[in-house]
Amino acid sequence: MMKRLKSKYEILRQKIYIVIYGSNTPEGKLFDLVLLLVILLSVAMVMIDSVKSVDPKYHNFLYYGEWVVTVFFTLEYILRLLCNKKPLSYVFSFYGIVDLISLLPMYLSYFFPEASFLIAFRAIRLLRLFAILDLMPIIGQQSHLKLALNASKHKIIVFMYFMIVMSIVLGTLMYIIEGGHNGFTDIPNSVYWCIVTMTTVGYGDIAPITYVGKTIASFIMIMGYGIIAVPTGIVTAEYTNLKYNNSELKTRIVCPECTSFIYDLDANFCSNCGAKLLNTEKLQTDE
Amino acid sequence: MMKRLKSKYEILRQKIYIVIYGSNTPEGKLFDLVLLLVILLSVAMVMIDSVKSVDPKYHNFLYYGEWVVTVFFTLEYILRLLCNKKPLSYVFSFYGIVDLISLLPMYLSYFFPEASFLIAFRAIRLLRLFAILDLMPIIGQQSHLKLALNASKHKIIVFMYFMIVMSIVLGTLMYIIEGGHNGFTDIPNSVYWCIVTMTTVGYGDIAPITYVGKTIASFIMIMGYGIIAVPTGIVTAEYTNLKYNNSELKTRIVCPECTSFIYDLDANFCSNCGAKLLNTEKLQTDE
Amino acid sequence: MMKRLKSKYEILRQKIYIVIYGSNTPEGKLFDLVLLLVILLSVAMVMIDSVKSVDPKYHNFLYYGEWVVTVFFTLEYILRLLCNKKPLSYVFSFYGIVDLISLLPMYLSYFFPEASFLIAFRAIRLLRLFAILDLMPIIGQQSHLKLALNASKHKIIVFMYFMIVMSIVLGTLMYIIEGGHNGFTDIPNSVYWCIVTMTTVGYGDIAPITYVGKTIASFIMIMGYGIIAVPTGIVTAEYTNLKYNNSELKTRIVCPECTSFIYDLDANFCSNCGAKLLNTEKLQTDE
Amino acid sequence: MMKRLKSKYEILRQKIYIVIYGSNTPEGKLFDLVLLLVILLSVAMVMIDSVKSVDPKYHNFLYYGEWVVTVFFTLEYILRLLCNKKPLSYVFSFYGIVDLISLLPMYLSYFFPEASFLIAFRAIRLLRLFAILDLMPIIGQQSHLKLALNASKHKIIVFMYFMIVMSIVLGTLMYIIEGGHNGFTDIPNSVYWCIVTMTTVGYGDIAPITYVGKTIASFIMIMGYGIIAVPTGIVTAEYTNLKYNNSELKTRIVCPECTSFIYDLDANFCSNCGAKLLNTEKLQTDE
Repeated sequence: MMKRLKSKYEILRQKIYIVIYGSNTPEGKLFDLVLLLVILLSVAMVMIDSVKSVDPKYHNFLYYGEWVVTVFFTLEYILRLLCNKKPLSYVFSFYGIVDLISLLPMYLSYFFPEASFLIAFRAIRLLRLFAILDLMPIIGQQSHLKLALNASKHKIIVFMYFMIVMSIVLGTLMYIIEGGHNGFTDIPNSVYWCIVTMTTVGYGDIAPITYVGKTIASFIMIMGYGIIAVPTGIVTAEYTNLKYNNSELKTRIVCPECTSFIYDLDANFCSNCGAKLLNTEKLQTDE
Repeated sequence: MMKRLKSKYEILRQKIYIVIYGSNTPEGKLFDLVLLLVILLSVAMVMIDSVKSVDPKYHNFLYYGEWVVTVFFTLEYILRLLCNKKPLSYVFSFYGIVDLISLLPMYLSYFFPEASFLIAFRAIRLLRLFAILDLMPIIGQQSHLKLALNASKHKIIVFMYFMIVMSIVLGTLMYIIEGGHNGFTDIPNSVYWCIVTMTTVGYGDIAPITYVGKTIASFIMIMGYGIIAVPTGIVTAEYTNLKYNNSELKTRIVCPECTSFIYDLDANFCSNCGAKLLNTEKLQTDE
Repeated sequence: MMKRLKSKYEILRQKIYIVIYGSNTPEGKLFDLVLLLVILLSVAMVMIDSVKSVDPKYHNFLYYGEWVVTVFFTLEYILRLLCNKKPLSYVFSFYGIVDLISLLPMYLSYFFPEASFLIAFRAIRLLRLFAILDLMPIIGQQSHLKLALNASKHKIIVFMYFMIVMSIVLGTLMYIIEGGHNGFTDIPNSVYWCIVTMTTVGYGDIAPITYVGKTIASFIMIMGYGIIAVPTGIVTAEYTNLKYNNSELKTRIVCPECTSFIYDLDANFCSNCGAKLLNTEKLQTDE
Repeated sequence: MMKRLKSKYEILRQKIYIVIYGSNTPEGKLFDLVLLLVILLSVAMVMIDSVKSVDPKYHNFLYYGEWVVTVFFTLEYILRLLCNKKPLSYVFSFYGIVDLISLLPMYLSYFFPEASFLIAFRAIRLLRLFAILDLMPIIGQQSHLKLALNASKHKIIVFMYFMIVMSIVLGTLMYIIEGGHNGFTDIPNSVYWCIVTMTTVGYGDIAPITYVGKTIASFIMIMGYGIIAVPTGIVTAEYTNLKYNNSELKTRIVCPECTSFIYDLDANFCSNCGAKLLNTEKLQTDE
């Protein structure tokens, strides 16, 4: 039987759940918008607070503002815990951990003033924006991209692994050649230089001075410049592939909470995190 | 009835309109060429004028030259206003604003000498070149590209948004690790460093010194090096897609004034800015 | 006759061969894992040993650790020689040379203390990781990529050759223009600067100061920025091509020892290096 | 009549022509190889000669070596003139000009010692390598690439033009914001900085210091990082396109002298530069 008696509390819990986790009702949209603005405000305050040249009286003002924001997010965190049937799945989900890390430093800094340098961690609250944006139609655009990146994941990890191994080998070689001079003081620094060079970043804080070193550096640069083709080729091929195989895409549901894919189209709850799946949250495909 | 009496003024207005806004008549082509040359001359003068090592007597010469150019563009601006049936649509169009911004500083600097640092703004006049080139056959080449970039727009905005959020999160992390030393003086500077690093620009004015900082910086670099594949994959896939679907492309008209697309092939005026559409200005497609 | 008498030694040799060169038996997998861990340990020790700020007492500890690792790899090297029917093919194979280069410096530094700066060469032992990873299923992912890179090889060499020639020509031009100032002290340094610039690395240790030099540098940068499209286009096209022609891929066997391709599916030994081919080592294809 | 009397001189001329301009006969291949080696030797001497730390006695040796090479190339230049039926078409061809520019400075430096800084121009002789390599089978590989680059040419020029205009506009904006400090001393320098930044080179010799400047610089970097997708997308699409339309490719002949395409398969002489076309020099296509 679908119909059964719900306690008053259960109905309230259900309502709050839909407002907080859903984005289809007007209340859910308003909640997301408020959350978005408070997150942006909070991050702006963290950033301004770190600037030394800002007038001390503003720092005082920022301090109170940060406590207001912290209380707001503490309440939101408690609400999320209370309205979720499986609160632990939220606590140990990616965004649950993000929420906790961005809340704790403020309380810690109150009890242990020496931990105050941690309060900058509140900025990781910004990662929450990805969760909010995932619920919005504009990101339906991203779906193909996500699938393509998912399909390319293993290959890109192998590629990055290749780059790190080559950096260690070539960095060691440069350490032997430049022999501790001009920033190549030890192997970790030489490897760091090699990554800076291969990725074409090139700070210039460490740079070869010997002719042999410069010659090898030249080959590392040309190699780094050439192999950028590899991740690009992988993503392009996967993305083109997916663009032309829409059908496969349409048979998936994406969980609004943990963004994992659910292949059982009749599922009502996410098999990964237990979030409720609403029909309207099925993945939006391009065209 | 198509035929109706036009006042002498109306005929003149029509003629000037075709010369200024069109590019099909010999007069229109000549006008575009003169405009092109005066713009290039004007920008060259702005650039040379800013160089301190140039002899003061040339500065005097440049000052008069700039007034000549300013008068020329003022007349052109007035003509555009007079010959356009809807002058306000021109004033508030992109190029109308560009024209105004590049004209005003010169007059302002005459009345308020302290505003003279604004006269460099005349260089934005250069943006007009895009409008002139849009009318030329060589840019017919660009049409597929424009459509591909248009189709990729949302995805690339989402990607850039992702990069900015990651830069703020990782920049904050580096601020905590490097703790105010070596350029990481506050979070905005650390975020700036993170963008400099992720985009593989790498000035080197700010660079990590601790081993932990260098390790995280290495991962940021490899990440930045890898995710360049994303915009590239998007544009390539969209461009390849459009290359093989020419038919769709041929059914559009591009407005010569505001470059928006008009799908009604029988339209005589642009539905966006009201510019007159000439048959010959239909979009040139590749091959 | 396939069956023939094997001496006790021959059976042992065969067993060790399967453990060392194979990766299908539990012993072979365990051996690979132990090798992987010892290599990582060894490289970590080389890196830490090079850092001057590490406490001298640890250096002593590291010294003994390095001798333990060296003895381990010496035994492994001897075992590889003994169990291989064609030991010379191993000695002169890529990984055989890598093994020797990473072993010799430690012994040399014992007899000739002045050669101790060579011991950093042990880090090239890391290249062995490629051989181990090649045997693991995760790298089956790489197979298309390898084929695509193989197919692109000649074109990318031609491209890199083009870049080097252009760097020499443009570097010489910059040497003439900047005339020995600001780092452009001779042609090799100017060529080095040109490679640093074209690959978009941009250290900034050498940078033009004259207006003419900066103008030419600008064109070199825009050129370098534009032609990155070339290797990317090549790899993407080859990779897309191979993705859609899976059939060809499935008819190849990849040699686990030298990673060359064998087209005779019934081959039992690699035609290149003589390594034994096991059925289960056939190339894993994507999807 | 095909058969006609040739003077002894004419037969000799024909023979030398085939040796110098052709690459199919053993003598032609030998000539190309010798030329290749002398060019490499010559460029190596130019490079070493510029290094100040090289011992003066070697400079003396290099001076005589350079005269030997110069005489060799002078003889080659004269031979090319004598054996070519249309010597002027050679003189004004790209490689004819390259040859002259790399010969003249040595003679000029003899008569006008103050012109000796020009002798570095001999390095442009290196460009000749492209002509030699074009004749070799390895570069047959390049043919698709060349066609793809040819097809992309106009679009890439438009793209580079866009980048230059944007650099001037954004460079001027940065000049106004940073106002002459920290390297932004005038508009040309600011534009140079903008190109260094947009192409992700990032020397760091000029870098913004104000918060507003850093914010705008961040957007320029992200823009530069994103729009690298444009040339890559163009070349990839064109290259993929050509890969799958081989038929068109096979109906062209490439001129060995000026590398232009000839569509008349029965042509015996290049319609562009007049070089003799040999059957075997038809374009090698991939696969």
